[in-house]
Amino acid sequence: MKIGIVGLGLLGGSFALGVKSLGEEHHFIGVDINEENAKTALNLGLVDEISTFEKCAGEASLFVLATPVNVIERQMIDALEYLSNDAILIDLGSTKASFCRIANDHPKRGRYVSCHPIAGTENSGPDAAFAGLLRHKMMIICDKSASDDDALKTVVALFKSLDMRLSYMNADEHDRHIAYVSHLSHISSFALGLTVLDREKDEKSVFAMAGSGFSSTVRLAKSSPAMWAPIFAYNRENVLEALNAYIRQLEQFRNIIEENKVDESYDLMQKANDIRRILMGIDK
Amino acid sequence: MKIGIVGLGLLGGSFALGVKSLGEEHHFIGVDINEENAKTALNLGLVDEISTFEKCAGEASLFVLATPVNVIERQMIDALEYLSNDAILIDLGSTKASFCRIANDHPKRGRYVSCHPIAGTENSGPDAAFAGLLRHKMMIICDKSASDDDALKTVVALFKSLDMRLSYMNADEHDRHIAYVSHLSHISSFALGLTVLDREKDEKSVFAMAGSGFSSTVRLAKSSPAMWAPIFAYNRENVLEALNAYIRQLEQFRNIIEENKVDESYDLMQKANDIRRILMGIDK
Repeated sequence: MKIGIVGLGLLGGSFALGVKSLGEEHHFIGVDINEENAKTALNLGLVDEISTFEKCAGEASLFVLATPVNVIERQMIDALEYLSNDAILIDLGSTKASFCRIANDHPKRGRYVSCHPIAGTENSGPDAAFAGLLRHKMMIICDKSASDDDALKTVVALFKSLDMRLSYMNADEHDRHIAYVSHLSHISSFALGLTVLDREKDEKSVFAMAGSGFSSTVRLAKSSPAMWAPIFAYNRENVLEALNAYIRQLEQFRNIIEENKVDESYDLMQKANDIRRILMGIDK
Repeated sequence: MKIGIVGLGLLGGSFALGVKSLGEEHHFIGVDINEENAKTALNLGLVDEISTFEKCAGEASLFVLATPVNVIERQMIDALEYLSNDAILIDLGSTKASFCRIANDHPKRGRYVSCHPIAGTENSGPDAAFAGLLRHKMMIICDKSASDDDALKTVVALFKSLDMRLSYMNADEHDRHIAYVSHLSHISSFALGLTVLDREKDEKSVFAMAGSGFSSTVRLAKSSPAMWAPIFAYNRENVLEALNAYIRQLEQFRNIIEENKVDESYDLMQKANDIRRILMGIDK
């Protein structure tokens, strides 16, 4: 089939490579507003041709929006308009509620399947794409009852052929949870990076002792601002709730350390150790 | 030579295994207040015999304190007292200024070399120890001019044979920097773990979508409270300064998101991206 992909970055590019690695007969049409990226994507074989949004949307049997969330919002209605009646639209954005709301009012709502793959790296752009990114990762499908059965079936079969795990939830629930387990992690990391970079202005050698622990907690500060600034805006209420809860936890630590309550500090960390239970399920 | 190690956990055990892997003729005497750990360390071959603190300190040519920092503080003077005149004392604690201050008043100050290896994992105990932990890692030696030349030379040669990189600084500078690039990372991670665990009480499935980004930022929340509670207390002033700076950065993010200033959020993250420059030097 013809697969159209808008946004030839880490996620769009990796999706294309993942499907290509299955060895089936598909034709990939790519769209990217950044000409340099489009050219790189073509050179790297992520897609077979570069086209315009309109043309790609009209030709594709599966049309994939892999752009930043603010761009997806603008593209949703256009995509549904241009889409042929039996084609399928998916988006891979990190927020879901607003897109489902937009699509709900459209007569072709059934052709849209709202997807979020829990996969990524801190790198971005077509040259960060790799075929294995989605393998064994979780694909969340939101508000599935609003999608036509055949559209859902086709998409699910494709994700399963990529060895992905499937999970279904409603879009509001998705946005609430993802604020805590993904969006907050990114803010914690960006802020940590800024804190130590700021310190470096006065203490040139502050990074001399940075090791794997620092690297692990600050890794996400390498992430793309073009992707993340819109996500925080689109999931604003949930992100603010998570961020405020995080600041309160840090203030609790600060007060305990300030008041030299070593036993309470111990108890707090022992509670946090319960995270082992969760990480056992993630890290393999 | 006879090498005595007090504290047979991740760091003490890995140091022993690292030196053992060199294939030289050494005899390792271990001390651990926890009998279970001592037994495990002996079974695993981390050390060749288990002894008492006094006996071990009296016999060892190299006596290593690899206990939590509050315990090191109690053990420093005893260790210097029991030590034979030409033996060497090192500690591997994550704070350095208070130990150097304690040792400075002792007639055997020259036999003490103040060390901090920038190495660790989120695991603890003798069964977390492995021979390669210290390889290619940074060993910070503090206030080296206060150590006898021969003691320093022996210790440096040993660390070099373990393929470690050496760095020298004064103990106060060490404690200021390490608050930012290690201690703060741990607090950020512990607090992140607590925030989401807390959320789980109301939203059972919040962790369903946790992926590698969450795992990376929260990994250090698995760390040992027995090790970290004393570190925060012993480096209190510096940790509080770093933590307050971090909370301010998070509040800046919060305000920007609250006020929907997407451009400022973008700029802040772009600044944070400068962390790539640092991480290139750490991750290999």
